Amino acid sequence: MQINPPYLMFLGDVPDALAAKTAAGIVDWRRDWCLGQLRLPGCQADLGIPDLTVAEAAAKGCRTMIVGIVNAGGLLNESWIATITAALEAGMDVASGLHIRLGADERIKHAAFANGRQLFDVRVTDQRFDTGKGTKRPGLRLLTVGTDCSVGKKYTALALERTMRERGLDADFRATGQTGVFISGRGVAIDAVVADFISGAVEWIAPAAAPDHWDIVEGQGSLFHPSFAGVTLGLLHGAQPDAFVVCHEPTRRAMRGVAHPLPSIGEVIDLTVRCGRLTNPAIRPVGIAVNTQQLAEADAQAYLAEAAAEHGLPATDPIRFGVAGIVDRMEAEFPRATGERAA
Amino acid sequence: MQINPPYLMFLGDVPDALAAKTAAGIVDWRRDWCLGQLRLPGCQADLGIPDLTVAEAAAKGCRTMIVGIVNAGGLLNESWIATITAALEAGMDVASGLHIRLGADERIKHAAFANGRQLFDVRVTDQRFDTGKGTKRPGLRLLTVGTDCSVGKKYTALALERTMRERGLDADFRATGQTGVFISGRGVAIDAVVADFISGAVEWIAPAAAPDHWDIVEGQGSLFHPSFAGVTLGLLHGAQPDAFVVCHEPTRRAMRGVAHPLPSIGEVIDLTVRCGRLTNPAIRPVGIAVNTQQLAEADAQAYLAEAAAEHGLPATDPIRFGVAGIVDRMEAEFPRATGERAA
Repeated sequence: MQINPPYLMFLGDVPDALAAKTAAGIVDWRRDWCLGQLRLPGCQADLGIPDLTVAEAAAKGCRTMIVGIVNAGGLLNESWIATITAALEAGMDVASGLHIRLGADERIKHAAFANGRQLFDVRVTDQRFDTGKGTKRPGLRLLTVGTDCSVGKKYTALALERTMRERGLDADFRATGQTGVFISGRGVAIDAVVADFISGAVEWIAPAAAPDHWDIVEGQGSLFHPSFAGVTLGLLHGAQPDAFVVCHEPTRRAMRGVAHPLPSIGEVIDLTVRCGRLTNPAIRPVGIAVNTQQLAEADAQAYLAEAAAEHGLPATDPIRFGVAGIVDRMEAEFPRATGERAA
Repeated sequence: MQINPPYLMFLGDVPDALAAKTAAGIVDWRRDWCLGQLRLPGCQADLGIPDLTVAEAAAKGCRTMIVGIVNAGGLLNESWIATITAALEAGMDVASGLHIRLGADERIKHAAFANGRQLFDVRVTDQRFDTGKGTKRPGLRLLTVGTDCSVGKKYTALALERTMRERGLDADFRATGQTGVFISGRGVAIDAVVADFISGAVEWIAPAAAPDHWDIVEGQGSLFHPSFAGVTLGLLHGAQPDAFVVCHEPTRRAMRGVAHPLPSIGEVIDLTVRCGRLTNPAIRPVGIAVNTQQLAEADAQAYLAEAAAEHGLPATDPIRFGVAGIVDRMEAEFPRATGERAA
């Protein structure tokens, strides 16, 4: 799956900003790819980018319209069909993160076929993968792991990619969730893969690479989440990370959607190392990323200082304070073969 | 999915006994359900049960024809189509463990529809599950786990069910693989479920039950297998077992399909307890099941005695020596509420 930017962001008639959070995540990280938004009457979200019609978007060079909408049930609204078919007729591909296939609607299917365009259903995969082999691949890999779902694993991975690239390091974000796929134009929503192929799909997502190349793999779930730990473990084994960063949200009391308490950062480090050794005996933590938005700045700094001291690792809030300290640690632990270090 | 016995076992024209191993497993454990076999010219397998035509099987009361065949690619052979449609026309349902849907062939699809019969594709599931919740359910559960794939987890679970029932215990085998589904007439091939729903599917397979009821859940893979550990962990969390049995094959040097060495029994016990605590804090091992077929009887007994002493658990080969010792341990650790103990 290779989704071609630039994008027209289709928001439909969503009732609030949260329903457009996939689209907002794409704009946060790939502003240059997002030439405009298309909002239907009644739309209550605004990405802060130009409003474009389908014709205007096509004229500006948009290659794909992204259905960046989260709705209950993941279904296609009847009110969206005309815009989607118009985009296909104007020469754009259409990509969606809904649970239903775009092609399940005959009008969309026909318009795509008649105009030779592609439909991308990021949440529904037909792609066949091999089962994972667990064989060590060349290249370096970092995985973001978490004490829970939705604690900043994608954001941390993207922040690492950006900072590493600024330093001249050869780093690629590797998406494993729908928003990440739209942000990078490739990848697989790993939670939609058939269970037997989780680790195999991740081996495909983060393939063999040059010895100095870093794949920054977006984590999913938590080894301690009773709904999703299987996905997390398959992802860990497939990614065979050399390094990992633990992501955490310190004010959350129960894991998302269930009654279980969050594990400690130390518990996550221990179990990640214990399980990760299977496909990479040298696996090690290189940092802690904390979402401190619920804390005042002084409290946030105190929390991070304590976490850093307790675990002997750089600890930061990627949004508030950046990830330079974690990248410093990566560069120290994994010096480049040439010995040079970018300024 | 509820597959109705009795069965006609369809072997097609398989080239050897191994290609009929699903069918052989069903006959091993449900001889009474298997009224006969149907073999096409050239078939090199024999289940040792009567050869029946479709008409004879229907007359004897067979309700389902099982396509009990493993072939490369999991495809439908053209030579099987006429027999499958004849079975549907004779009033039987047809169930298959192939990777392709029976209904992918238009002739089969049409015959099922025209005759009001059901097609069961055990390896391809459309069933929607909830995500796992990890909430403790009433009833007792045992899970068979392993140092590797194919070390006797299904066989051990079925042997436990049989011995427990002989003692008057209320026990049900819960299938998580295709052969197990045919043996029990229900269940889900868990490796075919979408990754997000592994633990949720197992919560559905082994639902809330009476306090003295045992679900004996068939394990899959190994927490130490780099291809399938995600499935194993989701299964462990969904089953939330009170007790587990570790299955092992002592002469195997590498895990199936990969280069990794087998973990020790002790490593499997430790990691199973550590991860299983998440959904059942009281999880504990109650036995070790070793496939000793490669060992002489004296060597087998010595191996089992050593394993029992090392881990403080009953150790047996279920085929050679039965599972009475493990059931003794279960009865001692989980006394029935009434206090009575069957003879």
